[in-house]
Amino acid sequence: MTEYFAGIDIGGTAVKAILVDGDLNRCAAGEQPTAAETPKHLVALVKNLVHRVQGDAGLSGANLAGIGVGIPGQIDIPGGVVRHAVNLNLHGFPLAAALTEQVNAPVTLDNDVIMAVQGAYRFLNPDRVSNFGHVNIGTGVSAGLILDGHVHRGQHGMAGEIGHMVIIDDGRPCQCGNRGCLEAYISGPAVAAAGRESGLKGDYGTLTAADLYRLAAEGHVNARTITTAAGRHLGRALQNLVMAYDVGRIVLGGGVTRAGHAFLQPVLEEWQHQAERSPLAAAMLDPDLLVLTPPDFNAGTWGAALVARQMFGRDGQTSAG
Amino acid sequence: MTEYFAGIDIGGTAVKAILVDGDLNRCAAGEQPTAAETPKHLVALVKNLVHRVQGDAGLSGANLAGIGVGIPGQIDIPGGVVRHAVNLNLHGFPLAAALTEQVNAPVTLDNDVIMAVQGAYRFLNPDRVSNFGHVNIGTGVSAGLILDGHVHRGQHGMAGEIGHMVIIDDGRPCQCGNRGCLEAYISGPAVAAAGRESGLKGDYGTLTAADLYRLAAEGHVNARTITTAAGRHLGRALQNLVMAYDVGRIVLGGGVTRAGHAFLQPVLEEWQHQAERSPLAAAMLDPDLLVLTPPDFNAGTWGAALVARQMFGRDGQTSAG
Repeated sequence: MTEYFAGIDIGGTAVKAILVDGDLNRCAAGEQPTAAETPKHLVALVKNLVHRVQGDAGLSGANLAGIGVGIPGQIDIPGGVVRHAVNLNLHGFPLAAALTEQVNAPVTLDNDVIMAVQGAYRFLNPDRVSNFGHVNIGTGVSAGLILDGHVHRGQHGMAGEIGHMVIIDDGRPCQCGNRGCLEAYISGPAVAAAGRESGLKGDYGTLTAADLYRLAAEGHVNARTITTAAGRHLGRALQNLVMAYDVGRIVLGGGVTRAGHAFLQPVLEEWQHQAERSPLAAAMLDPDLLVLTPPDFNAGTWGAALVARQMFGRDGQTSAG
Repeated sequence: MTEYFAGIDIGGTAVKAILVDGDLNRCAAGEQPTAAETPKHLVALVKNLVHRVQGDAGLSGANLAGIGVGIPGQIDIPGGVVRHAVNLNLHGFPLAAALTEQVNAPVTLDNDVIMAVQGAYRFLNPDRVSNFGHVNIGTGVSAGLILDGHVHRGQHGMAGEIGHMVIIDDGRPCQCGNRGCLEAYISGPAVAAAGRESGLKGDYGTLTAADLYRLAAEGHVNARTITTAAGRHLGRALQNLVMAYDVGRIVLGGGVTRAGHAFLQPVLEEWQHQAERSPLAAAMLDPDLLVLTPPDFNAGTWGAALVARQMFGRDGQTSAG
């Protein structure tokens, strides 16, 4: 009997799901706006979404062998407990058990960054480099890392908090309370705010990051100035990641990266600038190292589905990528 | 019969050696100024140094079971070949074979940063954290990293090149050709140059980094300004290492760190400054995470001796760490 696995990515604004079979064929996918007033709401939402993608695939009665769930927060993985997920209002909540009760399938949780890097590593890594980064640039900025073929979590499970690297002395205030954090310069809200401050307007009222990058692509000078500065900051941060970790590939994902060329070009210009000055930079900053996530690929749900298959599939880890 | 192992650290200015027994007791240690006009000179120097420490320990006839050698350069480890060590004028030189011929013991080579982090990890890590950094601040600046208990080399063996992270846009020129690299602000030559530019004088002619830190410790205002700025830059770089890797301990070694408190205090002040602003920084920047190498401990030679014992000892890897 064919096995199926669901991968869920719970974000602050949307919950996304994918349904795959044991050979990692995509059967269906879907998403719903996040509703997390109480843990119960969130559990019901995930249950409905899982049932919906099962229905869309014509697999309502099929064997759901396991579910992987990525959460933006601190997770007790063996216990299946969300220790803290501030944006989701979850604190010490046994999400795995609560979901299992609703969907009648085993559930494994992990941090969303860890899930996403595994999805990107498996599907956006044709050269199979074993030192690999997945950098998410959306509302926040974070990095998931695979080093020597293994997920790197760090001493306290906090590795990859690159959004709060301080890049400018006494710089812009950041959500975290500090000043000058990378996130305060390159996140979606940060570049949109910079655009609004310079008087730019969006197509539908308030200027968004997407509007800003579109204006830059159309040659708007003020917009271009902002995206160039953001690209310089991100380019330097990625250079630092390459210099410190020596990763062989970095996949860039998250809402802001959907701007495509308009987003990536200023980053590559910064790398080019460094490479012209320094043989070491020229040797290490290969532009092919940076890759944008394809617009239709969701690393978070794919990673969660992969982890579910590794954990609950008949073949177990041996079938993994 | 007792086994003995030698650990050698070949630097641009000195070659250092240690002799240990199979239980990692220190039997003797020594050093000699580097002479590397030709590869032959260097091989003769290492041979003489090994014989000297054997003699000092009264072990001239004893069984030298193996030698580990750390080199500042790119190494073909299985081949025992130094691919490039620019400062030592070695290019494609089979140093392991050449030394074995002279000292009649098997030799293993590795990059000096990799050797040093292993020495620090084994001997300066009482809490046995498994994510660990060793940052060397001397003529250059580099980091060796142990992640999840394993040496992290990166995709091209270049991990830890933190000295060439760009920290200031269009900043000071660096040896590497780029501008604004960390090394251009905190290395020994960099802080000494900053001191000389501000008119400070050394005890014996040209001001050194050691002079500068001594003046700062004595309360000299210009010196203090320079060491505070260097501490701020290093503090931020270390913060970035902690944020990205989530290392549980960072040992600071190299010539500049010999200044002790005068060196460390400005770094801790920068961490304190960040922690006061941000709960995330406060949670991650534990001052106890930073430790200075004891003045009489040479991480490079100890690491090289450890690796030699792991590789050539009777107990092999099972006796390690």
